[in-house]
Amino acid sequence: MFFVFDGVDGAGKSTQLERFSNWLTESGHEVVVCKDPGSTPLGERLRELLLNSKDLPIHMRTEMMMFTTARTQLVEQVIRPAIESGKVVVLDRYVFSTVVYQGYAGELDPQAIWDVNQFATDGMMPDATFLLDIPVEVAMQRLGDNLDRMESRGEAYFMKVRDGFLAIAKEHPTVHVIDANRDIDTIESSIREVAKNAIDAIQ
Amino acid sequence: MFFVFDGVDGAGKSTQLERFSNWLTESGHEVVVCKDPGSTPLGERLRELLLNSKDLPIHMRTEMMMFTTARTQLVEQVIRPAIESGKVVVLDRYVFSTVVYQGYAGELDPQAIWDVNQFATDGMMPDATFLLDIPVEVAMQRLGDNLDRMESRGEAYFMKVRDGFLAIAKEHPTVHVIDANRDIDTIESSIREVAKNAIDAIQ
Repeated sequence: MFFVFDGVDGAGKSTQLERFSNWLTESGHEVVVCKDPGSTPLGERLRELLLNSKDLPIHMRTEMMMFTTARTQLVEQVIRPAIESGKVVVLDRYVFSTVVYQGYAGELDPQAIWDVNQFATDGMMPDATFLLDIPVEVAMQRLGDNLDRMESRGEAYFMKVRDGFLAIAKEHPTVHVIDANRDIDTIESSIREVAKNAIDAIQ
Repeated sequence: MFFVFDGVDGAGKSTQLERFSNWLTESGHEVVVCKDPGSTPLGERLRELLLNSKDLPIHMRTEMMMFTTARTQLVEQVIRPAIESGKVVVLDRYVFSTVVYQGYAGELDPQAIWDVNQFATDGMMPDATFLLDIPVEVAMQRLGDNLDRMESRGEAYFMKVRDGFLAIAKEHPTVHVIDANRDIDTIESSIREVAKNAIDAIQ
């Protein structure tokens, strides 16, 4: 099984992802947790270039290709082997982030990004994506001044990001919008409920 | 105008590319010479990871994506601005190298590589490609023991690479096979002849 957490930064992805993974482990699953981009030696190097090299010229089209390249290595080196050996993969961000940040909120064609990612991941798609959704002003407030390359693009960009994620959720039945502007325990329960249905549907 | 030199390593690309660029400059053109991957700060970092990091796990699908990512930045930062300002671009390798090394000679679908590159380059294709062709045993002899990540894949791989390039030349009328198993001056004359026809065709 393969689960993805996605959404704007500041929505509480990390907290929920950790709780969800612990719950899966306690339920008897072997769980592999990773983040995209990252979680491979190559992915970490690309992540470093992408998020912390503000002086390095990187065009938005290149940025999209770099995120997708890190993802390719993650699929081949970590995700596919884990799933093939019966483990559960829980991933922080995936294809939809690129479709949203560089497509809906960026200047590239969302459909073209999707097509390139079909090749790059060799069609490896999650059973369920939890889209943690919060109003932009709440996200901005939570993040404060601690912004990376993506986040420093401002509130208008953030709003397009949120709208992009919501547009994707309408198109893809495996993407589930989770209202993340609630207390942590309530959010966790919502996620578990969706996951139980997804697990039942697969088995 | 936009010219590409391509083919197996050891065919004398660098020498011919330099002579050709000098000839264009002497003919009154403003010439921008670059190599793919490379010729941008990001491209140099990716090139370093690709060619000199033999211990870093990089799947062939990832390798293809990295070459293409470096290319995207090269197109946006160097090639397109140069062409738009009336300069002539002369490039060492381009899309066909990826289609050949990771497609025809690799394990990926050549057509899928071509499609991803259409997105990655936003359709920027050369007016003429000079495909310097030599028998594999001549190339291997010239290279000796000084082999990088690509070249160290052995003679069988090299032969698939050569055959791949020749297959592409049959499909694409802007790709011109240059017999590079001749003396340097004769090869140079052949290239100039093809270039003159290409320039006449454009003007």
